[in-house]
Amino acid sequence: MRIDGLQYCNWSRPIFEEMRAGGLDAVHVTIAYHEVFRETVLQMERWNRYFEDHGDLIVQARTAADVEAAKASGRTAIIFGAQNPSPIEDDIGLVEILHTLGLRFMQLTYNNQSLLATGCYEAEDPGLTRMGREVIAEMNRVGLVVDMSHSADRSTIEAAEHSTRPIAITHANPHDWHPARRNKRAPVIEAVVARGGMMGFSLYPHHLKGGSACTLDSFCGAMMDAAAQYGVRHFGIGSDLCQDQPDSVVEWMRVGRWTKQIDYGEGSKDNAGFPPQPPWFRSNADFPKLEEGLRAVGFDADSVAALIGGNWLDFFDKNFGPQ
Amino acid sequence: MRIDGLQYCNWSRPIFEEMRAGGLDAVHVTIAYHEVFRETVLQMERWNRYFEDHGDLIVQARTAADVEAAKASGRTAIIFGAQNPSPIEDDIGLVEILHTLGLRFMQLTYNNQSLLATGCYEAEDPGLTRMGREVIAEMNRVGLVVDMSHSADRSTIEAAEHSTRPIAITHANPHDWHPARRNKRAPVIEAVVARGGMMGFSLYPHHLKGGSACTLDSFCGAMMDAAAQYGVRHFGIGSDLCQDQPDSVVEWMRVGRWTKQIDYGEGSKDNAGFPPQPPWFRSNADFPKLEEGLRAVGFDADSVAALIGGNWLDFFDKNFGPQ
Repeated sequence: MRIDGLQYCNWSRPIFEEMRAGGLDAVHVTIAYHEVFRETVLQMERWNRYFEDHGDLIVQARTAADVEAAKASGRTAIIFGAQNPSPIEDDIGLVEILHTLGLRFMQLTYNNQSLLATGCYEAEDPGLTRMGREVIAEMNRVGLVVDMSHSADRSTIEAAEHSTRPIAITHANPHDWHPARRNKRAPVIEAVVARGGMMGFSLYPHHLKGGSACTLDSFCGAMMDAAAQYGVRHFGIGSDLCQDQPDSVVEWMRVGRWTKQIDYGEGSKDNAGFPPQPPWFRSNADFPKLEEGLRAVGFDADSVAALIGGNWLDFFDKNFGPQ
Repeated sequence: MRIDGLQYCNWSRPIFEEMRAGGLDAVHVTIAYHEVFRETVLQMERWNRYFEDHGDLIVQARTAADVEAAKASGRTAIIFGAQNPSPIEDDIGLVEILHTLGLRFMQLTYNNQSLLATGCYEAEDPGLTRMGREVIAEMNRVGLVVDMSHSADRSTIEAAEHSTRPIAITHANPHDWHPARRNKRAPVIEAVVARGGMMGFSLYPHHLKGGSACTLDSFCGAMMDAAAQYGVRHFGIGSDLCQDQPDSVVEWMRVGRWTKQIDYGEGSKDNAGFPPQPPWFRSNADFPKLEEGLRAVGFDADSVAALIGGNWLDFFDKNFGPQ
């Protein structure tokens, strides 16, 4: 079972074919960064066309059983997620509506303060808001996973504590390995995994030690260190692969409609676009190389299987849908 | 199995309790008259609250199997429908989105011309539009039933012919019995039932011979005549019960946002509000009386069972969801 805990590619049949070439059984795909409800539904409509037109390669999944059925049919399961709570606007009733439409992950923040919590680029983090606590309870009820990848430390720890079900950091790396602003400090990881949470290791170059020059050995070594410190069952891959996207898309991710200025996020004026991927992970077809790398740093077969997808599948089984 | 093919009550726990008292196993409820997509979703959110708060009495159904499960659990299944295509706006992709959210019936028109077809109050009926043909094909694909209760004759006949799956007139009566504008002429009924379609007999007083003074014997006699002419398996109940609604709601049904004038629809200036129900059908608790009336006019036990719910259940089984 091979599962990627987050991607946002410029979707096309060649990319779906690469998912099959790489033996991907499931991919959590982002369908919203700053989109409001109606715009998010338009993205779902776009995916419905992909499912109609490329039903030989991909199929929507809402449960772990759907992922296993997709694998059995030789297709890659697609699971919807949002990187911001913008799709629920100010309406808690939209949590269940979006869950019914297949949403299974939702970040409480994307870099900035939201109605629910604080993003990792704010100067101050006052923690969960009143609405944030209510929305987490509603997400717990219906089985929509709280994702804190782009959130600030206090908000993340409070979300892990307030949630009655495990939460996720779908795509980030340990701050101890590479101190990027988006990577997670030890107390944050500890709060998430202590309650059964999951963290997906990111292959987005700004999250990697050495950036685009990061080696497969260094990446897999960081997973080994995390497994030794927190337990192998809490980790997986969340590649953050943004294949074939024009640089206008990274600008949309960073700027949305919240400012009239340019914000470079993890980049800079001289390096504003998508950074080049490391040569050993350029597409879904490279997924088997991650397995090789994990074996090479000394993981046994069971641990490799858990990290490359088994842990995500267990997490889906426990956390998608009502308890 | 007792099924009502259409209601739009002012929903409350007492009404859900009357559904149980009347032994209703399923009710098709209207969630949109003139509402656009986002407003329709708000109505679904409202129903989600009803399902949470009154889950001992009602449960949402998307399939015939869901209806049978509801019956087995001693609850009434609720099936969503729209009386207008306003919820899909001008976007064919919303057909599948709304179906995923549980919509199972959609009228192509509500009295007026729509983007899809012509309503029964227009002076001219040019038949299905270009978009109408496309939307019917999409409704056929996903399993969203075409309902032509408020449509004009030519549009209805063309819809029955163009649709590759049976269509419905969820709530209307034969024009031969009572020549109201909303009741259906023989060639219209013939076109619908010849292709496996269903028609629900309405208990809305303007559709009844004698109006509010119509007798149970006359109503059941009309069902007997229809069964003799077209076959018993094509008919059921679609009561159009609008219990506890203020008259402002019938005004919304008739006027929506399409005019600044008052339109009295089937009423008149002197009789603008909801007409009083006949004394033998004032609430869901009166449903068993309809069975008694059908037996009294001479239907055998199998026919009564078919008319009171079995025919709708068979229709749901064949027409909800992809083929």
